[in-house]
Amino acid sequence: MAFFRVTLAYDGAGFVGWQRQASGDSLQGLLELALSELDQRPVPVVGAGRTDAGVHALGQVASFSLHRIIDGPKLVRALNARLPPAIRILDAAEVPAGFHARFLARTKTYRYRLWNTGVLNPFERAYAWHVPAPGLDVVAMAAAASLVEGRHDFASFQSVGTSVRSTERVVFSSRIVTASDAGATATGDASGRAALITYQVRGDGFLHHMVRTIVGTLVEIGRGKCGPAWMSEVIAARDRAAAGPTAPPQGLFLVGVEYDAQL
Amino acid sequence: MAFFRVTLAYDGAGFVGWQRQASGDSLQGLLELALSELDQRPVPVVGAGRTDAGVHALGQVASFSLHRIIDGPKLVRALNARLPPAIRILDAAEVPAGFHARFLARTKTYRYRLWNTGVLNPFERAYAWHVPAPGLDVVAMAAAASLVEGRHDFASFQSVGTSVRSTERVVFSSRIVTASDAGATATGDASGRAALITYQVRGDGFLHHMVRTIVGTLVEIGRGKCGPAWMSEVIAARDRAAAGPTAPPQGLFLVGVEYDAQL
Repeated sequence: MAFFRVTLAYDGAGFVGWQRQASGDSLQGLLELALSELDQRPVPVVGAGRTDAGVHALGQVASFSLHRIIDGPKLVRALNARLPPAIRILDAAEVPAGFHARFLARTKTYRYRLWNTGVLNPFERAYAWHVPAPGLDVVAMAAAASLVEGRHDFASFQSVGTSVRSTERVVFSSRIVTASDAGATATGDASGRAALITYQVRGDGFLHHMVRTIVGTLVEIGRGKCGPAWMSEVIAARDRAAAGPTAPPQGLFLVGVEYDAQL
Repeated sequence: MAFFRVTLAYDGAGFVGWQRQASGDSLQGLLELALSELDQRPVPVVGAGRTDAGVHALGQVASFSLHRIIDGPKLVRALNARLPPAIRILDAAEVPAGFHARFLARTKTYRYRLWNTGVLNPFERAYAWHVPAPGLDVVAMAAAASLVEGRHDFASFQSVGTSVRSTERVVFSSRIVTASDAGATATGDASGRAALITYQVRGDGFLHHMVRTIVGTLVEIGRGKCGPAWMSEVIAARDRAAAGPTAPPQGLFLVGVEYDAQL
């Protein structure tokens, strides 16, 4: 019996989300199916972040154990041969027994992409939230984003009906990054205007819908409905009703997950 | 009666190509359908470049005439409301009577995107040609690309069975551009390696499959099968059999079309 950790990227557009569901293709379900074929027994898989339907990953991490002896590069090839092209295993490595992709994750980084011109670039329709003109106030959004940093009770940003032990989380960085920092779009905008606004956040953990509700709140500030300081009021309220709307899933990317170096 | 020119972008993945076909959705057919609804009569549309199935456009140009009086911004909104999100009208303007998007085009610019690591980024599967490792020799490819510049008979790069008056064309620029020049991918590669190779070419016109066959020839050179000077031999041969394979459609983008300033 050997324990493994894989890093994977996926285009979330055609899936019901990370978690196995009664119907529809889930990332977890497809990965478990491929691994079960390889190991000729059921292989349960744990994912670091349980991404919702339509949410993408550049560096999701998953853990599982296998009876079969197989090295990392061979496991990458065997899984990619069995998975649809919308899911790619980027890396696989054996890890110490008991490694758990979710419980042992130290930080997660998410990116959210907004498209802010009147006409949505057709190549961005599954990868960004289209917020048409008038132009968002990116400076105000950046000021508000930085107020998210630190240890806070993020109850205001949690989807209604979720129950977790604690709604306190630490956000290490919360920034509006320029297009060139975050990787410009493959296509660009014909007008040459910087249409893409990217938000990136790194923390020790995130509540359900937390990133998308932070983004929905940032966009209210970008529209000028409230000043940047409103972000601190929303945090202090500890009430979902105080925050902005939940941004749609297609703009969200799980960028990466970090673990202690010895893992 | 007023003449119009529109600039449009489209994700070619789900279409049979620019030209109207007996079955399947074509870009020309969908645009004609939307315009016919607007003008309440059949409206024939001319496109500057007749892109093949799976080929994309960032700045295709099309021309047509309407009986209805409508200003540019209104026409953009009316067409985008009628077209699927994979096709977006970026700009529309009235032009002098007799404007013809294809015959009057002075230059066209195409871009071709190659993904050169073992695992294809899942977000690139419809937007790049996956050429797995070993790493292509980008320096040799760049040297060969520059040999395409100038006035040449490009018969070696024309798809078999095509007949045109002349196979001579002028290529003003033919370059391997770095990822940062051409717009990096939306997503990046987890390894940090520059996996994306972008080729860009601007000329007074292109034969059918010409860009894709230049790219297929460049990749043979990148693999080390021949040196950069082979490109000049292929051009001199004036024989399709002399060139490399035709690169697949999904890596190709029509970037833009230029006209005389007074148009």
